[in-house]
Amino acid sequence: MTAAATNRQFRLAARPVGMPKPSDWKVTTEPLRDLADGEILVKTLYLSLDPAMRGWMNEGKSYIRPVAIDEVMRAGGIGKVVASKSDKFAVGDVVSGGLGVQEYWIGAANDKTAAFYKVDPKAAPLPKYLNALGMPGMTAYFGLLDIGQPKAGETVVVSGAAGAVGQTVGQVAKHKGCRVVGIAGGKDKCDFVVKELGFDACIDYKGGSVKDGLKEHCPNGVDIYFDNVGGDILDTVLTRINMKARIIICGAISQYNNTTPVKGPSNYMSLLVNRARMEGMVVFDYADRYHIAAAEMAKWMLEGSFKTKEDVVDGLDKFPEALLMLFEGKNFGKLVLQVAKD
Amino acid sequence: MTAAATNRQFRLAARPVGMPKPSDWKVTTEPLRDLADGEILVKTLYLSLDPAMRGWMNEGKSYIRPVAIDEVMRAGGIGKVVASKSDKFAVGDVVSGGLGVQEYWIGAANDKTAAFYKVDPKAAPLPKYLNALGMPGMTAYFGLLDIGQPKAGETVVVSGAAGAVGQTVGQVAKHKGCRVVGIAGGKDKCDFVVKELGFDACIDYKGGSVKDGLKEHCPNGVDIYFDNVGGDILDTVLTRINMKARIIICGAISQYNNTTPVKGPSNYMSLLVNRARMEGMVVFDYADRYHIAAAEMAKWMLEGSFKTKEDVVDGLDKFPEALLMLFEGKNFGKLVLQVAKD
Repeated sequence: MTAAATNRQFRLAARPVGMPKPSDWKVTTEPLRDLADGEILVKTLYLSLDPAMRGWMNEGKSYIRPVAIDEVMRAGGIGKVVASKSDKFAVGDVVSGGLGVQEYWIGAANDKTAAFYKVDPKAAPLPKYLNALGMPGMTAYFGLLDIGQPKAGETVVVSGAAGAVGQTVGQVAKHKGCRVVGIAGGKDKCDFVVKELGFDACIDYKGGSVKDGLKEHCPNGVDIYFDNVGGDILDTVLTRINMKARIIICGAISQYNNTTPVKGPSNYMSLLVNRARMEGMVVFDYADRYHIAAAEMAKWMLEGSFKTKEDVVDGLDKFPEALLMLFEGKNFGKLVLQVAKD
Repeated sequence: MTAAATNRQFRLAARPVGMPKPSDWKVTTEPLRDLADGEILVKTLYLSLDPAMRGWMNEGKSYIRPVAIDEVMRAGGIGKVVASKSDKFAVGDVVSGGLGVQEYWIGAANDKTAAFYKVDPKAAPLPKYLNALGMPGMTAYFGLLDIGQPKAGETVVVSGAAGAVGQTVGQVAKHKGCRVVGIAGGKDKCDFVVKELGFDACIDYKGGSVKDGLKEHCPNGVDIYFDNVGGDILDTVLTRINMKARIIICGAISQYNNTTPVKGPSNYMSLLVNRARMEGMVVFDYADRYHIAAAEMAKWMLEGSFKTKEDVVDGLDKFPEALLMLFEGKNFGKLVLQVAKD
């Protein structure tokens, strides 16, 4: 087994109303049991913190079942196999999968929900496997290319531009020959996506008018809008779209903690005027092509034409407050929780 | 020329706030001038009254320029050529085109905005050329088939089911092998679309809950929603859509007279959960294929498997109050204003 005899876990204590409060979580510590045949024990190294987690905490039908009350909070992550009674993974393997917000994961090596697969710790720093080479990257890549179908010369706008999905959307769009304009909160984030990631421009929604920014930076209108935020920004972009524009609905972080009804896009009739479409996507649908996307982006990274930024917070106990950073726009880059060094 | 020496016209006097008021119109009477070479004089017989007219009265960019203040109100219609100095049309020809809300239209026979084309008064009663064989029919046909892409066995829901567009959407969908559920206001309209037009069911939004109606009549969910109304009904349908559903945005009659901002669809994130799309359309884009649609629907009419209902109001002077019938749901069938008998 392992030196650790116990496993500390964050469980959902109550369904949050608005922003998750400390009392919505319950910390439990349980002893680690022995492995049965076919099982593995995985030590959590890094956890991915994502806006979607807020949705998983709500009751009701969605693209994935809600986390149950008292259940360990769902989270993807990177871990190391520290014990194995399975042929599938050996001790020392580094794996990516559905670890949950806990120090250890224990169960069948072929568990369908955890869906572990090996990653190469020498090929890239581990947090990158939770960013462009993980779910946010896959979401960005397939949302942009499959739903958006960008053509060279078109203008692509992406909100949450400095975030995990936005970074990749913009860089993939640049690789496809598009003009790319980000929307992000604050000068530092805007400078980063323009100077580091090579976006053509970035609009600081905290520092000025998104409408004016779109007029200035999208002189030919907007052909593709990749929406991570919803709310007023979606409504504003709708006033600037071109004929046959495509709007990819990836998220609506501005609305996830509402205690009032979601603000629907008042300007949706712009879809009619412009014969445009708004389409939703869920990354899991593209699982059989993840390897293609990862290979292409890894190649760009090696060539130096694709960068990623992670914002790593240290310590499992920081989980509740780290999660809130997402909704306050405080993370700068893909938010990752480091649970153990190795 | 003609016996009539004058032309009575409804002009836009002011941009309405909310529902159009009598004072938003100005009635003018002007003498009919002589024809120049290449011109025709058309006597208005029937005018098409459509929800879209409300949008044309607003300032601002849309799919067509707004009607200017003091301009004759835009309207499509059927008229008879009563004088001609053009080879294109002869006296006695019956034509369809942009006549405007007036007794006579005068101008070049090949005027691009009016876009006159001949119709055969023997093949169908003239009001039908403003219904299934006119713009509403073309809107329904191409919106459903091109944007919706229905497959046999799928469930199609259409709002404004007894209206001009809705009638045709439902009957075309039935011809394509779909289950068709209408939404309409009142028992008479619901009975009509089920018993006369052959819809599988119709939900009376004035008599009960649309949500309950959808549960009852769409046991397999909604694959295609053809939306003519927007507002709460759109939001409710969004809670019942299937994976890969298509929502055709054709209109939003519930919102056209708002004095507050348009109510956007609060449940638009259902597009994400269901990987669904919402897409707008404008009928003019399909002009080169109108003849195909008209021929197919005319064939069905002759076979008795396709019916239409018009609601004809008599007299040009009734224009202001007749238009309001649309927004109060008082018309039963395609609303047509009869201006002259022949």
